[in-house]
Amino acid sequence: MVYGIRTPMLSALVLFGMLLGSGIALAPVASAQDESAAVTEIAETIGAGDAATPSEEAVVEEADLGIGYALDNFVLFICAVLVLFMQAGFAMVEAGLNSAKNTVNILYKNLMDLAVGGLLFFAFGFSIMYAGSYVSEPNAYFNAPHYGIYDSAADRTFSPQVDWFFQAVFAATAATIVSGAVAGRMKFVAYLAYSALLTGLIYPISGFWKWGGGWLMQFGELTADGYSMGFQDFAGSAVVHMVGGFAGLAGAIVLGPRLGRFTTDGKSVPLPGHNITFAALGVFILWVGWYGFNPGSQLAFQSTGDIDATVLIAVNTTLAAAAGVVVATLISWALFGHPDLTMSLNGALGGLVGITACCDCFTNGWSIVVGAVAGGLVVFGVMLLDKLKIDDPVGAWPVHGLCGMWGCLAIGLLPNTHLAGGSTSLMIQATGVVAYAIWAFVTMFALFLVLKAIGMLRVSPEEEKAGLDVSEHGMHAYPSDSYSGAGVTA
Amino acid sequence: MVYGIRTPMLSALVLFGMLLGSGIALAPVASAQDESAAVTEIAETIGAGDAATPSEEAVVEEADLGIGYALDNFVLFICAVLVLFMQAGFAMVEAGLNSAKNTVNILYKNLMDLAVGGLLFFAFGFSIMYAGSYVSEPNAYFNAPHYGIYDSAADRTFSPQVDWFFQAVFAATAATIVSGAVAGRMKFVAYLAYSALLTGLIYPISGFWKWGGGWLMQFGELTADGYSMGFQDFAGSAVVHMVGGFAGLAGAIVLGPRLGRFTTDGKSVPLPGHNITFAALGVFILWVGWYGFNPGSQLAFQSTGDIDATVLIAVNTTLAAAAGVVVATLISWALFGHPDLTMSLNGALGGLVGITACCDCFTNGWSIVVGAVAGGLVVFGVMLLDKLKIDDPVGAWPVHGLCGMWGCLAIGLLPNTHLAGGSTSLMIQATGVVAYAIWAFVTMFALFLVLKAIGMLRVSPEEEKAGLDVSEHGMHAYPSDSYSGAGVTA
Amino acid sequence: MVYGIRTPMLSALVLFGMLLGSGIALAPVASAQDESAAVTEIAETIGAGDAATPSEEAVVEEADLGIGYALDNFVLFICAVLVLFMQAGFAMVEAGLNSAKNTVNILYKNLMDLAVGGLLFFAFGFSIMYAGSYVSEPNAYFNAPHYGIYDSAADRTFSPQVDWFFQAVFAATAATIVSGAVAGRMKFVAYLAYSALLTGLIYPISGFWKWGGGWLMQFGELTADGYSMGFQDFAGSAVVHMVGGFAGLAGAIVLGPRLGRFTTDGKSVPLPGHNITFAALGVFILWVGWYGFNPGSQLAFQSTGDIDATVLIAVNTTLAAAAGVVVATLISWALFGHPDLTMSLNGALGGLVGITACCDCFTNGWSIVVGAVAGGLVVFGVMLLDKLKIDDPVGAWPVHGLCGMWGCLAIGLLPNTHLAGGSTSLMIQATGVVAYAIWAFVTMFALFLVLKAIGMLRVSPEEEKAGLDVSEHGMHAYPSDSYSGAGVTA
Repeated sequence: MVYGIRTPMLSALVLFGMLLGSGIALAPVASAQDESAAVTEIAETIGAGDAATPSEEAVVEEADLGIGYALDNFVLFICAVLVLFMQAGFAMVEAGLNSAKNTVNILYKNLMDLAVGGLLFFAFGFSIMYAGSYVSEPNAYFNAPHYGIYDSAADRTFSPQVDWFFQAVFAATAATIVSGAVAGRMKFVAYLAYSALLTGLIYPISGFWKWGGGWLMQFGELTADGYSMGFQDFAGSAVVHMVGGFAGLAGAIVLGPRLGRFTTDGKSVPLPGHNITFAALGVFILWVGWYGFNPGSQLAFQSTGDIDATVLIAVNTTLAAAAGVVVATLISWALFGHPDLTMSLNGALGGLVGITACCDCFTNGWSIVVGAVAGGLVVFGVMLLDKLKIDDPVGAWPVHGLCGMWGCLAIGLLPNTHLAGGSTSLMIQATGVVAYAIWAFVTMFALFLVLKAIGMLRVSPEEEKAGLDVSEHGMHAYPSDSYSGAGVTA
Repeated sequence: MVYGIRTPMLSALVLFGMLLGSGIALAPVASAQDESAAVTEIAETIGAGDAATPSEEAVVEEADLGIGYALDNFVLFICAVLVLFMQAGFAMVEAGLNSAKNTVNILYKNLMDLAVGGLLFFAFGFSIMYAGSYVSEPNAYFNAPHYGIYDSAADRTFSPQVDWFFQAVFAATAATIVSGAVAGRMKFVAYLAYSALLTGLIYPISGFWKWGGGWLMQFGELTADGYSMGFQDFAGSAVVHMVGGFAGLAGAIVLGPRLGRFTTDGKSVPLPGHNITFAALGVFILWVGWYGFNPGSQLAFQSTGDIDATVLIAVNTTLAAAAGVVVATLISWALFGHPDLTMSLNGALGGLVGITACCDCFTNGWSIVVGAVAGGLVVFGVMLLDKLKIDDPVGAWPVHGLCGMWGCLAIGLLPNTHLAGGSTSLMIQATGVVAYAIWAFVTMFALFLVLKAIGMLRVSPEEEKAGLDVSEHGMHAYPSDSYSGAGVTA
Repeated sequence: MVYGIRTPMLSALVLFGMLLGSGIALAPVASAQDESAAVTEIAETIGAGDAATPSEEAVVEEADLGIGYALDNFVLFICAVLVLFMQAGFAMVEAGLNSAKNTVNILYKNLMDLAVGGLLFFAFGFSIMYAGSYVSEPNAYFNAPHYGIYDSAADRTFSPQVDWFFQAVFAATAATIVSGAVAGRMKFVAYLAYSALLTGLIYPISGFWKWGGGWLMQFGELTADGYSMGFQDFAGSAVVHMVGGFAGLAGAIVLGPRLGRFTTDGKSVPLPGHNITFAALGVFILWVGWYGFNPGSQLAFQSTGDIDATVLIAVNTTLAAAAGVVVATLISWALFGHPDLTMSLNGALGGLVGITACCDCFTNGWSIVVGAVAGGLVVFGVMLLDKLKIDDPVGAWPVHGLCGMWGCLAIGLLPNTHLAGGSTSLMIQATGVVAYAIWAFVTMFALFLVLKAIGMLRVSPEEEKAGLDVSEHGMHAYPSDSYSGAGVTA
């Protein structure tokens, strides 16, 4: 056994027990009218026995909401699948941009973000996020034997199931942003604790603030001519990306840099990634996945206005990403003497993050401006962290933190259809941005400090040198044995 | 020439000839009213000359079936594309989990499963599978110049074309499951023979049993309160995954283990995969593709009830996969002293396979239970094969065979909306499970025995040691020459 | 600085300035009625100040075009996303089939095709392509604050935004085909110049000829019985793939072969790709993406006839790809003594390219024939280039050029629902094919000659030997440092 297993195992089991406890106990057994003794026994074992008969109220009369409802639900479903695909993109980007000896660990963290995140967002997150406005009865959404008890069948716009799915993959996205920033030196169990807390509590609260009816949604008021004065963040530049980016920054700071990343006399030593092809593949996948993230956030598709907005969002997303690539390429070319692919790939992501807040309210031309600025911010953000000796191996904070801020502030700075503009708008946007930065940074800084205090945060220097794959998982990503006779003379 | 080419070439040509013969001869030439001599000549050469004028009956009056029909067809089309994408996932998982020297061979097998499988399912498979219930005239579906002669235009629910597409990618999935189980020692031509037989005959018959109107569909009857007593397998835990998993088991047994996999004194020697990043990417892709596999199997989307069911299925699929990951992680952690990524990746797949049979009839909470059990079964299944000295390099049987069984049996064991429950339900499910296990295992065991008897099954020990890439395909996946100057000091 | 940066930087900045100038100046500021001084200042800085108030005409009354309009737009959006995903596929295929030392360069070129291509197709390409038939006012489509000024809201069939998106990803596809053909020896800045010219001008003009109302669209006339006599190319075998393939051929010829590709006494020395797994993954991704390319080109989905045609197209696409794989496998097996995966992968792509022109007008059976012939053409095309000592590292011309020609000619040769058939039809198709071949080859040959004349085309022999990754981008794709401790004993 590489290190003491008892603590992580215990905490993991407690977490999973809580999940099962809350999830199963609340899941009544549907329609099992002719239950045999065997079924009852099993049901009782896992604590579902008492709820084995569905209550009368749980059975809603099925109203036919028409083809528009079907289309809306299908579009949101496909968009959620695209967002889930982003997990593959993050895994490839982060693995590719790090040393080969930490590959298994990075891939594992991405997988757990989706798995643990999905389960905890199911058990707690969703009800917290929509506590105020949407779910009348806490946890009611998974109380249903099939679908639909928590709002009347006739007036709902989405199946609660697809609504949960779309929000859950956003939560997993917020979580997985961090895995790159803390790569190469964090204990696996510390990452699991972080991931569980973020998807189960921190992100849901940040989501509630804006999308669940919280203070940032109600902030300000509609002007006489119909412009909302509230904080604007269409698809989550702040709610999702800044939360992930600033959580990652907290982790990178508390952990400290990887061994050898900065010399004792303060010189920066880049530790190059082991596979730029995976990194590029990851960026292409993320770009594709973003067409679920942004267009899906329109949350209504059947009317002409909504579908037109949805495809406008798609085009703005495309143009901002493209502009981010071009500007990051030109700046890196001018600064370093050659076009730098890593910067350009991050420039694409920066453009995507930047436009996320405002993809619905800018013209195509202004979207190019938003993406172009983001492409520049990525390069300067990476250089800034380098100056500050903060080691963020994949540039998670420049991409998600900094460009997330920019996207929200751009709504206060550039002309658009949402805010009335002017200094008031900018103040509103700045307030939201600062709130999210502080919320994610402070809570996660505290968590990582606690983990550090109890010796659960960072692996030993020996383990770090050996690589997390061996020290945390007892395996290699590319074991030399498996290459014998394969052409590579390894 | 590495080995005698005549036999494989001949059999391949015969197969392809049969395909062309059946496919082309039945494809009448549409609307070629002004045919020139050149066209007639070509048409006659390939045997289509006589059918060059479409029969009057082939031209159906086009009824407009409305927007609901369009939506249904589009959803099924997109779901089929997602399932087809699973081929990339299988290719990545199987390549990544095997030695580098067998990579070309594995990728090739996956490609051929889709190519040969697609063509044979077109020529024979689909008509066999739906012989009883759907297609009134054998092979009529590709008799149509364009679309739609085999049912009247007014009452069909899908275009025959998309129906075929969705079923064809399922057939290719069943086939490709096997390539991982037999990796590293089976002759390429033996695999082609297997793949052709499975997609053209064995899978279509197994599909017919349940989905084409066969005995398992009609098994049992509706109870007074509307619960079906027939064998339940919503999207193919048994029909697709068990068939693939047990065919793979048969192959692994008849082939025997790879050289060095078990020592002469019976010790198990793990042969690690060469690229865990590809394996993880493959699992993410499979996870994404499963949103076509399971939700698409609802086969109707325009009504509120159907679309709600579709997205419920998506969420159940998500939660089961997540639970499979978490349980496989915890069990491997407890047993091996560290969280094992390979187990967790297979845990995701196990959860997905397990929920496939019952994703439409469980609550979210029970879906977590189904996935959690599957996650455990994967770990114990891998250990069981190890004990039995059966070499299944990627765990195809634990994932697809064992978890496929579990998914079907869970419907008889846990409360759900399909079966009335109790021992009768369990007996029905067990009957189906046993039938599919025997069908796939026995037919494929026989095929592999015959291939072994004629010396066509396994490569020589020298070829195996050299790797199938060199011995079967004359190339390396990662030739050292192509790495000169690339940074890797290979 | 590796080489003189001034020229490339200047030209890049000029290009980008032109883009910003045209894009921004034409993008009026929407609804910024209460603009503060700060906003005005920024707007003026980037030249958008004068247009800060949207003109009255720009605001169209929003008509509700119904659920059919929403479905049409959503389908086209999803198909565009699938086509954009093809960029990842091209990147993987081209990187995998080339030496490791040129990987960064290849990935970068693919990224820039999408980024620069997207921006230039936005600034110029789209208006050129649809100058004649669609856009009444040049550049009007991005003049809109949101959507829809250039046709009346009531009679449009698509949002202009999704229309642009779908066409833009086609332009990027045409561009990216070339990057494989010129891999390993072209300067990055030369590639950027090519890519900009192709997406901004050459491809839009070729698109205009057929899809924008140009001479090939109007060529011929409808016969009395309703068959069009014009040039047929449904989804772009010629318009997209031949343009890319022949541009690549021009590049390969003007550049000359890679060092060592042909010996001084004329022997061909294959330079194997460095990662066949990436290549196979790329082909699977391209296959998936093609379901956007071909079915999406139906451009209407809500009627029964249109949706049935869409899924027929999907099936024909599948069968042609499958037949391409099988035939390329059998021919390579017969010629080389073993089944050659590279050929089979290109066979899939050849089948896909071949069926692109005629996927809507052939029966399933004839689609198999089209794909099978394409599979053979790929093998013989590769051998032909070898004989001619033209170095096309990935087979871009055999796949896209040759099979693109075949697809268009097949409409004149084989019975189908589009052309009346006979020698007239064949002449029409041949005319179009020759026109596209000449257009792409001659314009690009000229461009590459000019670049060669000014010394901007090919890197020095030293740079080529070192690899473009180091010489053009100052980095390795797989730096050996990043592998220390990772299992691979590199």
